[in-house]
Amino acid sequence: MRPVDALLETIPVALGTRSYRIHVGPGALASVGRELSGLGVGKKALLMADRGVLARYGATVRESLSRAAFEVGELTVPEGEAAKALAVAERAWEASIDAGLDRSSSILALGGGTVGDLAGFVAATYMRGVNFVQLPTTVLGQVDAAIGGKTAINHPRAKNIVGAFHQPRLVMCDTAALLSLPEREYRSGLAEVIKHGIVLDAAYFADVEASLPALRARDLGTLTQIIAGSCRLKAGVVERDEQEADLRVVLNYGHTIGHALEVVTGYARWTHGEAVALGIAGAARLAERLGIADGAVRQQQLQLLEAVGLPTRGADVPAPSVLDAIARDKKVRDGRLPFVLAPAIGTFRLVYDVPAAEVRATLADIA
Amino acid sequence: MRPVDALLETIPVALGTRSYRIHVGPGALASVGRELSGLGVGKKALLMADRGVLARYGATVRESLSRAAFEVGELTVPEGEAAKALAVAERAWEASIDAGLDRSSSILALGGGTVGDLAGFVAATYMRGVNFVQLPTTVLGQVDAAIGGKTAINHPRAKNIVGAFHQPRLVMCDTAALLSLPEREYRSGLAEVIKHGIVLDAAYFADVEASLPALRARDLGTLTQIIAGSCRLKAGVVERDEQEADLRVVLNYGHTIGHALEVVTGYARWTHGEAVALGIAGAARLAERLGIADGAVRQQQLQLLEAVGLPTRGADVPAPSVLDAIARDKKVRDGRLPFVLAPAIGTFRLVYDVPAAEVRATLADIA
Repeated sequence: MRPVDALLETIPVALGTRSYRIHVGPGALASVGRELSGLGVGKKALLMADRGVLARYGATVRESLSRAAFEVGELTVPEGEAAKALAVAERAWEASIDAGLDRSSSILALGGGTVGDLAGFVAATYMRGVNFVQLPTTVLGQVDAAIGGKTAINHPRAKNIVGAFHQPRLVMCDTAALLSLPEREYRSGLAEVIKHGIVLDAAYFADVEASLPALRARDLGTLTQIIAGSCRLKAGVVERDEQEADLRVVLNYGHTIGHALEVVTGYARWTHGEAVALGIAGAARLAERLGIADGAVRQQQLQLLEAVGLPTRGADVPAPSVLDAIARDKKVRDGRLPFVLAPAIGTFRLVYDVPAAEVRATLADIA
Repeated sequence: MRPVDALLETIPVALGTRSYRIHVGPGALASVGRELSGLGVGKKALLMADRGVLARYGATVRESLSRAAFEVGELTVPEGEAAKALAVAERAWEASIDAGLDRSSSILALGGGTVGDLAGFVAATYMRGVNFVQLPTTVLGQVDAAIGGKTAINHPRAKNIVGAFHQPRLVMCDTAALLSLPEREYRSGLAEVIKHGIVLDAAYFADVEASLPALRARDLGTLTQIIAGSCRLKAGVVERDEQEADLRVVLNYGHTIGHALEVVTGYARWTHGEAVALGIAGAARLAERLGIADGAVRQQQLQLLEAVGLPTRGADVPAPSVLDAIARDKKVRDGRLPFVLAPAIGTFRLVYDVPAAEVRATLADIA
């Protein structure tokens, strides 16, 4: 067996006083105590995770923190989206008081994107902001949700409507945790990996294409390289536009239609990654319809999505509902919403005021 | 009558991309539409205030906004601290959805510090942050709460424990609104004015001393000058330390003991300003006890507080409870809490690890 450190990648995120590092590699969770200690934060902490994740990784994280002399409270949160309820945030603020957290303390999120969103929001708002550590154990969490400081909870009438930008102080992506993900969840996370390649980096897109067999086999070396590559791409965007003023909207590629499909189907029919895959298929078709990209660019995207087992057809939901959901997107500003489209692999363009008829025709194409 | 604009003062707060301006003067509320429009924000807005404040100033603000083509929703919040409950924040998020606010929209807080704290927190967290406008109608709001971006709601077990730093885009301090404040509330606000003089600016302290008769008579010209002076001092501190990393703690002068007194008496016995006045009396005595300042410095502070009708004695509450409340102060970091003390008028020093016996003796002195 190769030593763990040989596989460890470190990605700096340069955000001035809010800079931090992302560590990617198998076994990363066991180093959280040492890394957090190196930041000179206070010794009190609160760890949040769901029951299943705690059973699997809780001991590793607790031991690592305890070896570094941290005093760690724990809060078990509901699994999945149920964690992102205001009532859970309220329990988490209470748990923070109980654990005696002060402004020098840390809140750690262990698990998927939902616990990260919740714990990040609590860390952003407890005492107007305490240190936050992301310990993502899913592909989606490692390449997307854990990086960039977007945190949120849901309102019964709108997902992610209440939140804050609050950068983590530290992100530890343990790629060994990906080995135990259910196949559907693993594949779904790869939708964001592919998205990064499409709009940001043609060479990375080619790397993912070339790594397909190893990715399917979840080879740890390949996983670490691909995850680290995605982290690097996302970090680069976040560094240039921390609060989604302009450039960061590129990360929304495939999400305008994808998110609307999730809303219309009550988040029950597709995983987030599957909806994003359909959204990418839609965006690729829309770019073609608008004469922004040719058919070959669309084909490349569809082929890679399909090769990892993600859907590119089957979005047979009523177009008016989808258009309505798009109109209520959080990224609408004073009534306008840009579509992110890809003229070629590795590039993007923002297109405003896309005619509804074009979106409707696109939806028919991915139905 | 002098024209309103002749009395208008504008104070810039330089915080890079988060810079904004504070307008101080009688009639300022009537200009909110024009000023907000000048910032190029979206045309949807939500106005929050309690019933009494809405009855008094709602029409002026609504008309001003409407003349500038804003479409304004309204939320009536409970009076005083009751506004700062999580349930009210939840209603406000809902009202923001109902009013169709998007990321380019604005939330306006009209009234005292509590509605500003609540509305600021909602503006900080709705869609991860929308534009926020402070329209403070109290002395405390105008010289302190509305400036600097501190927002918060309460938890049943701890005040202001949930919040965010979120700078306003605009602050309009209508000094004519101060004419209708009840005497006790008016005087209480002056505690923060005096605090600014003590720790930040001896000349301003002397100005306040010299303006006493005019301040007691609530002369609009004097009020505008004194309020603007306090805004300028607070803005200077916020510019140098936006997120209370170090310098900003100076604004906590008189608040360590003052806040503990409020906690111990359940916020029922003294107004915030009265508790701060007692806290200033305590800090002045503590500085003398520790040999940091001489008796004359303390006397100057007591005299000015007493001249505006604020208490400097009568804090007869059990010392152990006060010490306990101090130990749980939000500004404790990894177990340590600095006292802000004034070696002379216009200067300050942070003093760590003050012996409990000294605090106890100080409390006896202001009992």
